[in-house]
Amino acid sequence: MQELEKIAVLGGGSWATALVKILSENKADVRWWLRNPDDVHHLQQYGHNPRYLSGVRFDLNFVHPSSNLEETLKEADWVILAVPAAFVQEALAGLPADGFQGKTLVSAVKGMIPKENLLITDFLEQHFGVPADRQCVIAGPCHAEEVALEKQSYLTIGSHDLERAEKFCDLLRNRYVKANPLDDIDGVEYCAVIKNIIALACGIAHGLNYGDNFQAVMVSNSLEEIEHFLDALMPLHRDLKGSAYLGDLLVTAYSQFSRNRTFGNMIGRGYTVKSAQVEMNMVAEGYYAVKSIYELNQKYKVEMPITTAVYNILYEQVSPGVEIDILKEKFR
Amino acid sequence: MQELEKIAVLGGGSWATALVKILSENKADVRWWLRNPDDVHHLQQYGHNPRYLSGVRFDLNFVHPSSNLEETLKEADWVILAVPAAFVQEALAGLPADGFQGKTLVSAVKGMIPKENLLITDFLEQHFGVPADRQCVIAGPCHAEEVALEKQSYLTIGSHDLERAEKFCDLLRNRYVKANPLDDIDGVEYCAVIKNIIALACGIAHGLNYGDNFQAVMVSNSLEEIEHFLDALMPLHRDLKGSAYLGDLLVTAYSQFSRNRTFGNMIGRGYTVKSAQVEMNMVAEGYYAVKSIYELNQKYKVEMPITTAVYNILYEQVSPGVEIDILKEKFR
Repeated sequence: MQELEKIAVLGGGSWATALVKILSENKADVRWWLRNPDDVHHLQQYGHNPRYLSGVRFDLNFVHPSSNLEETLKEADWVILAVPAAFVQEALAGLPADGFQGKTLVSAVKGMIPKENLLITDFLEQHFGVPADRQCVIAGPCHAEEVALEKQSYLTIGSHDLERAEKFCDLLRNRYVKANPLDDIDGVEYCAVIKNIIALACGIAHGLNYGDNFQAVMVSNSLEEIEHFLDALMPLHRDLKGSAYLGDLLVTAYSQFSRNRTFGNMIGRGYTVKSAQVEMNMVAEGYYAVKSIYELNQKYKVEMPITTAVYNILYEQVSPGVEIDILKEKFR
Repeated sequence: MQELEKIAVLGGGSWATALVKILSENKADVRWWLRNPDDVHHLQQYGHNPRYLSGVRFDLNFVHPSSNLEETLKEADWVILAVPAAFVQEALAGLPADGFQGKTLVSAVKGMIPKENLLITDFLEQHFGVPADRQCVIAGPCHAEEVALEKQSYLTIGSHDLERAEKFCDLLRNRYVKANPLDDIDGVEYCAVIKNIIALACGIAHGLNYGDNFQAVMVSNSLEEIEHFLDALMPLHRDLKGSAYLGDLLVTAYSQFSRNRTFGNMIGRGYTVKSAQVEMNMVAEGYYAVKSIYELNQKYKVEMPITTAVYNILYEQVSPGVEIDILKEKFR
């Protein structure tokens, strides 16, 4: 009998839950770390995550929930990191520097390490010595909620090591998930971060009563902003029209499930950042992402009008109306 | 006193109505041809189009409705053609071959002449001898309904003669409309046609219960299809991420106002073409567009999976589920 792939999934949110569903249905041996012991207990007892995608039922022969990180990681060949970017450092704080040795790390995080303004893959390399060719990122237009509903979805696995990416694709593929490898790992990782900023901007415009015409122009113009930024950081012939870039942006900017769009919408309607966060009871990744990208770009000085507008609105208390007026004049 | 620009607008639909609003508010002298004498009478009496965007009120000092085509065209410097593509030949049937002599023709039609499979600009050149450099097309993400609501919109005016395009942009620009010239007139015209096919395909998938993840992948993949087709017809360095291409596609594929998406949705849910048309009581341009593009492509043999799928569903009675299954395997 072939031995099962041992996969550790770190994180208890909706994206982690969706990935555990996909992987365990493919009969991988999934060790699932959730911070909260009550959630672990609920999972062990009822086979459901009480907080996210709670309709999904797990086969506990293949899913082993635990709130003990070291135990979860022990023996795992693959480690999928699926906690919000702002909590990555905290989640991994107890781990020794060689805690990931010999394992392949897969980032499902769509954000950057705050303050250090590092991509997750760079953080893992710098702090845990995980070499670039043992890392992958999961990209592509994929709402966890639709995975739960088994709606047809497409994932792109970015890696410098395309064979490794292909192997991970194989762990994901099923009746409703297609997966393809891609070598532009940094490009898709940055794009996944910036798309949250764009979705936030779309929400702000919507909250200010702008319509579909304006949103379509915002999204078109945003691709230029993303392209210039990526070209400045790492020139490469990449086609941003692909589903790992544009597709991911579209699903976030247009979907009813997007937290960033919802957060932006509240800001556009006049909520303060604080009250929008309280009201939503969750973190919109774009709130942190815009600070990281804005600060990082101080070095590159790429013209990033949408990022600048969102930064000014969220961190400099400029009125949303004023910033969207400025964008309005710049768009074509 | 500077003489007013004399502009004839042909067509009584929502896009024609929105354009008359924009142009007349800028104090052009708009001669507006509508086929139906009752509608002309209603406009003259109440200042509203009874059928489309009926909330818009026209200043009859600047808007002169008429059901007499020759009278409308007489003295006009600009002629805006804004009837559905399938009715263009019929609308212009009574005109002599030199009926547009000396005038600039602006196509606001987002479709092709059926059977002849001609772009509107090519039709005007072949049948009325209007030279290419006296023609413009109106492109860009712009729902007429949002123009009526004075929501910020962006138009792109395509023309081989950029000065002429710029002049027409100036007739459109106002508080809520930005306009920019572009020289890729054929590219934006074809893109405007094909986007209706894509929106129809998105509707079909939605009707079959596919979700946002799949739609994002469909739209990303469609840009590749459009790019290959345009490159085969007229190679040119064009950036399809621009708002005249991608923006136009997005507003059609994602918007609640899109007739093509609605039509596709009914097909996906199992309506026949006939019953969907009866139910909607209007023409979805994509229904004709897919036939023209499919037939035209028999010469070029570009791989156009979405166009082929929609053609097979609408004209070859293949089941929507079967065709979307084929697409599913081709997408990345």
